Amino acid sequence: MIKKKNNFLRAVPLHIETGGINIAVLNAEQAKDMDVKHLDRVMVKHNSKSIICSVDITHISVKKGEVGLFVEPWEKLSLKKKGSKLRVVSVPKPLGLEFIKSKLEGEELNKDEIFTIIKDIVDDALSDVELTAFITGSYCRGLSMEETYNMTMAMVETGDTLKVGKGAVFDKHSIGGVPGNRVTMILIPIISSTGLKIPKTSSRAITSPAGTADTMEVFAPVDLSKNRIESIVKKVGGCIVWGGSFNLAPADDKIIKVEKPLSIDAEGQLLASIMAKKLSVGSNHVIIDLPIGPGTKVPTHEKAEELKEDFVTLGDKLGIKVDCIESNGSQPCGNGIGPALEARDVLKVLTNAKDAPQDLKNKSLLFAGTMLEMAGKAEKGKGSTKAAEILESGKAYEQFKRIVKAQGGNPDFKINNIKVGSYTFSVKSDTNGIVTIINNKTLSDCARAAGAPYNKGAGVFINVKLSDFVKAGDALLTVYSESRLKLERARKVLKEKKVFTIQ
Amino acid sequence: MIKKKNNFLRAVPLHIETGGINIAVLNAEQAKDMDVKHLDRVMVKHNSKSIICSVDITHISVKKGEVGLFVEPWEKLSLKKKGSKLRVVSVPKPLGLEFIKSKLEGEELNKDEIFTIIKDIVDDALSDVELTAFITGSYCRGLSMEETYNMTMAMVETGDTLKVGKGAVFDKHSIGGVPGNRVTMILIPIISSTGLKIPKTSSRAITSPAGTADTMEVFAPVDLSKNRIESIVKKVGGCIVWGGSFNLAPADDKIIKVEKPLSIDAEGQLLASIMAKKLSVGSNHVIIDLPIGPGTKVPTHEKAEELKEDFVTLGDKLGIKVDCIESNGSQPCGNGIGPALEARDVLKVLTNAKDAPQDLKNKSLLFAGTMLEMAGKAEKGKGSTKAAEILESGKAYEQFKRIVKAQGGNPDFKINNIKVGSYTFSVKSDTNGIVTIINNKTLSDCARAAGAPYNKGAGVFINVKLSDFVKAGDALLTVYSESRLKLERARKVLKEKKVFTIQ
Repeated sequence: MIKKKNNFLRAVPLHIETGGINIAVLNAEQAKDMDVKHLDRVMVKHNSKSIICSVDITHISVKKGEVGLFVEPWEKLSLKKKGSKLRVVSVPKPLGLEFIKSKLEGEELNKDEIFTIIKDIVDDALSDVELTAFITGSYCRGLSMEETYNMTMAMVETGDTLKVGKGAVFDKHSIGGVPGNRVTMILIPIISSTGLKIPKTSSRAITSPAGTADTMEVFAPVDLSKNRIESIVKKVGGCIVWGGSFNLAPADDKIIKVEKPLSIDAEGQLLASIMAKKLSVGSNHVIIDLPIGPGTKVPTHEKAEELKEDFVTLGDKLGIKVDCIESNGSQPCGNGIGPALEARDVLKVLTNAKDAPQDLKNKSLLFAGTMLEMAGKAEKGKGSTKAAEILESGKAYEQFKRIVKAQGGNPDFKINNIKVGSYTFSVKSDTNGIVTIINNKTLSDCARAAGAPYNKGAGVFINVKLSDFVKAGDALLTVYSESRLKLERARKVLKEKKVFTIQ
Repeated sequence: MIKKKNNFLRAVPLHIETGGINIAVLNAEQAKDMDVKHLDRVMVKHNSKSIICSVDITHISVKKGEVGLFVEPWEKLSLKKKGSKLRVVSVPKPLGLEFIKSKLEGEELNKDEIFTIIKDIVDDALSDVELTAFITGSYCRGLSMEETYNMTMAMVETGDTLKVGKGAVFDKHSIGGVPGNRVTMILIPIISSTGLKIPKTSSRAITSPAGTADTMEVFAPVDLSKNRIESIVKKVGGCIVWGGSFNLAPADDKIIKVEKPLSIDAEGQLLASIMAKKLSVGSNHVIIDLPIGPGTKVPTHEKAEELKEDFVTLGDKLGIKVDCIESNGSQPCGNGIGPALEARDVLKVLTNAKDAPQDLKNKSLLFAGTMLEMAGKAEKGKGSTKAAEILESGKAYEQFKRIVKAQGGNPDFKINNIKVGSYTFSVKSDTNGIVTIINNKTLSDCARAAGAPYNKGAGVFINVKLSDFVKAGDALLTVYSESRLKLERARKVLKEKKVFTIQ
């Protein structure tokens, strides 16, 4: 088949977003002429920019001689007006497809093969089907440490990297699955207040009620350019920004978009994904939080040990010193779930408020302490004490305000100025007993139904934790929403499944 | 998360086809309200019909309170006018997803699990990502014979079945990969002329220059209703129709749409796919053509033996008597490639023309003969002779005309009335020697570039076969096209890669 056929077509914007894949729409006649079928790929070029699109077909919306473009390709090509002349050529199958087949057949891929696949992913050259085949193939067949290393390097090299200067650069990562858990927002100020560099990029929620980036956004913008982030880190030593705001290991985001709906984590890809982001921001000292519990990615201590060993081995190959800490993932960390409620928790800890959630504080001190020891800022075994001094002296809070200001936020905040939804209801215990189970999934579903993370003030505040004794009539949780409708939806979630088991 | 939220939205047709997936487009505000993100699924209901769609998002094309529908969902819901009120509800993850994960993890699936997945596939409840995960998982982990049996039954039960009466029903299948190879169109008349029932459904080309259905369409309509096919088989004993014209094992078509771009054939799925179609049309005696050669699905004799054993075992479980015949897949069968050129080959064989392609004739007689023996219409070892008698007496040709007429075609055809493209060029040998290799893939690519299968008259006619001696200046092949542009494209294919190796 002829793979390259030149065609100049006039651009028509279609204003539809897929959220990922680039779609170009061709008239049926045009497509036949080009021997292009549904979901075949074409390269669309405009001036110096070119992208690969999957083809949908129309008899009506787009005429022969035109090409309809969804929002993603329209924006990536920086198109301004309808009718711009575009070169549209059918493209051969991506090179990486052959190696994806090798992986499906159980072969180990070499460096070149992995780089080819990752480059295809970044270039949008793989269809959803092909990308999924690579991910599930890697999941079923596994990735060797060498493959994982090559994938990490390929992810880094196909993206942008942060330049934050020489010397030790610190970082922290949680593999997730625990509601609340805003350790990062307390740890970064503690660490950076000692003069250490810690350029932290965080994620937004995909299926959870809030990511660290969503919560930080209550205080300051998190969607900053690479240059801006570099200058913030140079100025105040640390930042808490959204990792998606610049082109950081872009292959990883595309892989996650496939893994999420399948709820699988190919271990090799998990390792590569995390370490690629760390390497891309220039970190060389990393502490990883491995929460253990139902619904997290690490169900058991044994699994955590395995993962820890792999993280350390991969870190060695990459020149990154890695430490992993197992934590309790069986209940939320902190009391708030949802951006504003979590922001309040963070502020309470940073300001040493009496009602600050102690579990969040203690976990933050443990992680910050371990990092201070790693950095030689505290003797072995004295890190947490040192971290507590920094926190309790108010230095961490001052540093947090500096970071907020540097990111463009207003550092003059009070807890009561953090607005939570005005539509609320509380759930009370109908029995006396001990809290034996907290269902994290139901809590998250409830907070999302209430409007989190889109509505910053929506979420759930829980009053009790595991092993707490409660009496009939005690408040267990309060739901906050910014609309009556969503409050009712949240109520419905709690009617279907219970959060607390009290025995 | 609340999974069912009622929303009546007004339908807006968007006139875009994906070729498979159902897409519904929601306004961004609407989607936020429903807590639906890109590629989440919604169920769209209209009167008694409901379908599952993936969600794209727009800020412009569709307003809040509306739902934009691509061509596939618009047609499946039998919508007539813009503004029809539709109920749109977000739907939970499909039930089968959990079992797809089990397969990825290497578990054997039981009957219920496989039926759930196949039902999800038929209901469009799986996204491309999820469907691919199932197919690649089955490919990497393999399917047991029990799983294959259950998949076959699930494919049959989720589709329509043909009722062609009791008693022996015959069928033939080629697992493909050989250009030309129109054995079916010669075998069906031979077999049905003896009073045996053989309701044959064939495919259209996906990536090849012609499927049997495309070539048969040169003579008669092939897109017939289930009732029509049943009455044709009752009347004349056989038919050659397009399998896609009614709802025959619909899960299979959706699986093939994923396997094709990956060019994988999970063996269990290949078996289930073929046998489900046979069972759906009511066949209980099947002969399967296993072409061996580079580019076919069976590279070696050993692989063919394995596959044969599995076909026979699965057939036993299903109550279908199966025989497999290994054939030569290293070169085209017949001289024409492309619908009209293949139709001419078929007609030459059926009319016992002097220039009829002998390889196509002999292969057809072998397969028809084996089937006559299976049916007890010929003694063991005498089948081919019997088939040759039927063919050479003209009975097969008369029967072919009866079938063409029954399908609504004009049985009064002459070879010269079968139009081939008027734009042509020939390639001549520039050397003396023996033909040692024929590149089937290049031949197919060339025929497609020339316009096949869309342009019936486009294709390639080859003058020489393997082991033929050719002299410099002898014609090797002629390309036919219906447009000058496409002829040039075909010429370009042949410039890039050669079809014949002559040594």
